[in-house]
Amino acid sequence: MAETGQAQSVGVVGAYSTKYESRSQKEAHEMIQEVATGVFKTVDKGMSPEEVDLIIVSNYSDSFGNILHTAPLVAHYIGNMSATGFRVENACASGTTAVYLAWRMLSSGLFRNALIVGFEKMSSVGSSAKANEILMRTSSPEEYRVGAPFMTLYALMAQEYMSRYGATEEDLALVAVKNHENATRNPLAQLQKKITVEDVLKSPYISKPLKLFDASPLSDGAAALLLSSEPRKYTDTPVYIRGVGIAHDHPGVYQRADIAAIDAARRAAEAAYRMSGVSAKDVSLFEVHDAFTIAEIILYEMLGLAPRGEGYKLIREGVTSFTGSHPVNPSGGLKAKGHPIGATGVGMVAEVFWQLRGEAGARQVSGAEVGVVENHGGTGATSVVLVFSR
Amino acid sequence: MAETGQAQSVGVVGAYSTKYESRSQKEAHEMIQEVATGVFKTVDKGMSPEEVDLIIVSNYSDSFGNILHTAPLVAHYIGNMSATGFRVENACASGTTAVYLAWRMLSSGLFRNALIVGFEKMSSVGSSAKANEILMRTSSPEEYRVGAPFMTLYALMAQEYMSRYGATEEDLALVAVKNHENATRNPLAQLQKKITVEDVLKSPYISKPLKLFDASPLSDGAAALLLSSEPRKYTDTPVYIRGVGIAHDHPGVYQRADIAAIDAARRAAEAAYRMSGVSAKDVSLFEVHDAFTIAEIILYEMLGLAPRGEGYKLIREGVTSFTGSHPVNPSGGLKAKGHPIGATGVGMVAEVFWQLRGEAGARQVSGAEVGVVENHGGTGATSVVLVFSR
Repeated sequence: MAETGQAQSVGVVGAYSTKYESRSQKEAHEMIQEVATGVFKTVDKGMSPEEVDLIIVSNYSDSFGNILHTAPLVAHYIGNMSATGFRVENACASGTTAVYLAWRMLSSGLFRNALIVGFEKMSSVGSSAKANEILMRTSSPEEYRVGAPFMTLYALMAQEYMSRYGATEEDLALVAVKNHENATRNPLAQLQKKITVEDVLKSPYISKPLKLFDASPLSDGAAALLLSSEPRKYTDTPVYIRGVGIAHDHPGVYQRADIAAIDAARRAAEAAYRMSGVSAKDVSLFEVHDAFTIAEIILYEMLGLAPRGEGYKLIREGVTSFTGSHPVNPSGGLKAKGHPIGATGVGMVAEVFWQLRGEAGARQVSGAEVGVVENHGGTGATSVVLVFSR
Repeated sequence: MAETGQAQSVGVVGAYSTKYESRSQKEAHEMIQEVATGVFKTVDKGMSPEEVDLIIVSNYSDSFGNILHTAPLVAHYIGNMSATGFRVENACASGTTAVYLAWRMLSSGLFRNALIVGFEKMSSVGSSAKANEILMRTSSPEEYRVGAPFMTLYALMAQEYMSRYGATEEDLALVAVKNHENATRNPLAQLQKKITVEDVLKSPYISKPLKLFDASPLSDGAAALLLSSEPRKYTDTPVYIRGVGIAHDHPGVYQRADIAAIDAARRAAEAAYRMSGVSAKDVSLFEVHDAFTIAEIILYEMLGLAPRGEGYKLIREGVTSFTGSHPVNPSGGLKAKGHPIGATGVGMVAEVFWQLRGEAGARQVSGAEVGVVENHGGTGATSVVLVFSR
């Protein structure tokens, strides 16, 4: 898990994202084409597709979108058949796994410029029951066999966390309220709509204590990044990858040492902070994996923003709100920006790129200097943490 | 595409494969567990799971087997939660893409020991019509939309090849006959049954000129490898990766410069030969991607065994038979050994490992010193070529 040295030179030089939507008019391959070609237009000094020598595609399931073997498709769309490409999958952490691998290979000199494309067209399956079955494929085989949906697994985590530390359903609701409000400032967000604590508390229980409004939506969307080991060739304002961490945990919630933690995120953050020399207090903004509200609260602790058992106090006190001292998910997060799985981690990095370049418009965090992304798969069997700065 | 330098030190030190079957009694996760743990027992001097720092899983589609996020599952099964893992997909070339990436990262010193697990449980979908739709997801979006099955796309290639160069349906049949005979010597093969040219010619046309017996079967199976950058620590007889090449082509057959070629294989082979200093005449045995008989004949030419347009003469003359001067697919190939997609490339490398160590039993190629693997995705939009020797 631990990563050392050599991270200084890799920078993000371009980023592009579709709006995330409940139902995109575009087919999966059209979304891929849009972002793979569109991202080149975002590079300040220009980059030619021929300069890309590495293509990594992030996609969760071919059962969403009915498409596979997408790396050569990207190569075809950008008109460069000499790059090396492949798709990577680590459940909901596929996008940041792609960024992690690109960083690994660029910082070691194996490749020079990487194009990363993430996408998911979840509406293609037509029913949320079917979507749910596909999502459950990322759980442990035992959880899949008993038919435990994600919401139920996160509910187990929430129940244990709340009873142990005294957090309430209102605390969870506050996360949803904050992220929905943030999304009203983000034109790329799926749910650009304010909600109240009452709205959340009145929404139906799906798996107690989690309610409908505690969950992120099903989404269609795609995002792309260009990374370079010579970033200043392409822009005077690259956003550097300063630290990376990737860690795993047992696939089943019930197999873990502490079911009220996301320990892989703690270990990934520790590695990324160590590499970057940054600690949580230095971070201007976080984009974290709030697939369910309880996850964001637990992540406050895993990422070092709060001591163990006190994460929920941050949401009560407004510390992580848009105008707080440590904004979390200024984009709206998975909860309100949306969660097109293969695109999610790629889009998180795009958001930090824009924030650190002062290009985030109405949702710009003032004085943003250091950004952190946490993106995990399933209930936390994989977590990737990335630290960025200008 | 081109790879240079640094390849000397990475070696295969362990290999394990299930028998390939039409319908495995094991579920996908049970196959994964079997090969991920079984491969450690094949390491001569032993390797502890804790020594693995990289896990790469190869799997084609989660629509076969209903399982995702398999890298942490492998970590869980071997009892090592500190390795870095992810799944890779490049259609039917997923397995060798995993080997390529492991080689890249081990030879650069980023990791030391890699566990590669490939699997596919194609019988899980229950019908060959559904399996066919899933296979078609690897074609271009246009080919998918018109509903062109793989067999039809390869039939286009075969039709053009045959009319241009004078190959016949009997020549294609000879490939099937050879590979079925080879499979009778391989206890891991799915179709351990001799067939005659007449059997092939009498089998029904699926897409003229290709008949049922020109195609590889649907298969269940899994395979695993252990690669090390310090191979002699683990065995006195490692099999070294001497050359690698990966290349892409346009996704659609109709988009390619020559539809009777698999040009990505030619370019990948060129790179792998250049890196290894080996040419086709030096190769003791080939394992190549004979998903359809025509592919093997075209590959003779792409891999430099025959001049362009003369590949079919090799099968007529017995050059590539088990006792010929350049045996191709002594394992039985995809055609008769079977083709559990995510396992296929991993299993090909396992076969070469056994052959070069003299451990291939009744199918041992005598005096095997250099082995080459060619594994491609779809109709050739990705090809990986690997050169091995002791």
